[in-house]
Amino acid sequence: MARESKGVLYVVATPIGNLEDMTLRAIKILKRVELVAAEDTRRTGILLRHFDITTPILSVHQHNEKARVERIVGRLAKGESVALVTDAGTPGISDPGAALVAAIRAGGFTVEPIPGANAVAAAISASGITSHGFTFLGFPPIRGKDRKLWFADVTEAGKKRLVVFFEAPHKLLKTLEDLSAYVKRPIMVGREITKLYEEFVNGTPSELMERFPSPHGEFTLMIPPEGQSNSSLETISDEQVLDLFGRITEIGLASTKREVAREVGERLGLTAKQVYEIVERNKLVE
Amino acid sequence: MARESKGVLYVVATPIGNLEDMTLRAIKILKRVELVAAEDTRRTGILLRHFDITTPILSVHQHNEKARVERIVGRLAKGESVALVTDAGTPGISDPGAALVAAIRAGGFTVEPIPGANAVAAAISASGITSHGFTFLGFPPIRGKDRKLWFADVTEAGKKRLVVFFEAPHKLLKTLEDLSAYVKRPIMVGREITKLYEEFVNGTPSELMERFPSPHGEFTLMIPPEGQSNSSLETISDEQVLDLFGRITEIGLASTKREVAREVGERLGLTAKQVYEIVERNKLVE
Repeated sequence: MARESKGVLYVVATPIGNLEDMTLRAIKILKRVELVAAEDTRRTGILLRHFDITTPILSVHQHNEKARVERIVGRLAKGESVALVTDAGTPGISDPGAALVAAIRAGGFTVEPIPGANAVAAAISASGITSHGFTFLGFPPIRGKDRKLWFADVTEAGKKRLVVFFEAPHKLLKTLEDLSAYVKRPIMVGREITKLYEEFVNGTPSELMERFPSPHGEFTLMIPPEGQSNSSLETISDEQVLDLFGRITEIGLASTKREVAREVGERLGLTAKQVYEIVERNKLVE
Repeated sequence: MARESKGVLYVVATPIGNLEDMTLRAIKILKRVELVAAEDTRRTGILLRHFDITTPILSVHQHNEKARVERIVGRLAKGESVALVTDAGTPGISDPGAALVAAIRAGGFTVEPIPGANAVAAAISASGITSHGFTFLGFPPIRGKDRKLWFADVTEAGKKRLVVFFEAPHKLLKTLEDLSAYVKRPIMVGREITKLYEEFVNGTPSELMERFPSPHGEFTLMIPPEGQSNSSLETISDEQVLDLFGRITEIGLASTKREVAREVGERLGLTAKQVYEIVERNKLVE
């Protein structure tokens, strides 16, 4: 908390999918400030309305950033406070927010973070991957040479620690294909984190291409450090599949064997077909 | 959100300093689950009481982890839900939580992250440092060879992107001293993030040793990528100091010149003495 009650730039984290992933302090601050500087005024408008926040919103993006900085500095100099938010999650790396924060800091104003949802931290926390630290690499570059260097970077960083990056659905298959040349070990994919169809799936890059034939939603990819033995990432044993198949049949969560196979697959990151094959191979299906 | 309403392990982020940095969903989940698995039952007890949450707490730490996993699996298998929390922030890297999550995942249960406060993301968001991605390196090792390798790692990772790490107050000066052999450029230090005496200060490692002669609180260190020109990290110009000195004198925030110097220093990451010297050199002090 800043000592003075005036002229502070608050950098406020906002939800990444579920609107209830908002902190009590973030709500208070957004209500209290004189201005909310936002990347996408429409998306931020939805969030503010959800929490009955009527603070005016100012659009800040790459193309008007410099003029906006002057305007925000003017407000702060008058003793007013401003909140900076991005579309979703914690403002910071590679978004227009960083340069704005730097400019405000250079002006001698207090900048205060209001922590909250963050896709990288959320993905790691649910992954079960053990690592001393991690490297976050944003989105892979699209073009040839940069992209090649980027994959080399993934390989290098992945020798020492967990590597996390994002990918858009329409680029996922190409990225998994390219990744399969560099990474042969099982990785973990988080899809639609904090949203209704959230799922975490593990497999080698090639296996994941089969698992997501037509990808939807937002993807967070996690590559465990080389040589790490992590029980949640190892190949699923037949015993595990049969055990879960028996358990789900028993509790009556699904009525047909095919539905049970789908349920089991969903939980273990396999396709229903893969589960069915394992069960058949072990002669539990008549 | 998981599709089933039962048997889910929720990995819940908790505040890192300010208790109001708790999300609405985290409060709901901690109320709703049958059990909260916590690293430090005393600290988690304080948090739960603050939000009138009466869910029983189970202690989970390195020494009882294996037995606890069985107990938690037993509860999940019965259709009960469990929340996992650590002392502060988002469970995940290098804490006992990761192995527990891996074991629960391997058992075929759904693990769902409930995002929230995280010291790394909060620090970066308020830093104003521009970087494509970042590397988080936890705490520096204490011992000789590991420590040397770790600093080499910082140097290597810092060539490409922002490096973030934590340090305990009683080890800060030694770490800044060692770091000064590897990193000559200005870095940024976040102290007591989200707490009452939060501050962000920049300077070279040697300058920061002078700035924190007897360090208190928790420190997050941020090393910008090599060769980055970042206005908030560049050496403060005399003009900036004089400008702020004039402004603070004008608004009457401090009554004596020495107090004004302290205020200016606090905002620009300089000592009061440094500010005083700059002002004197520019002959504004009679």
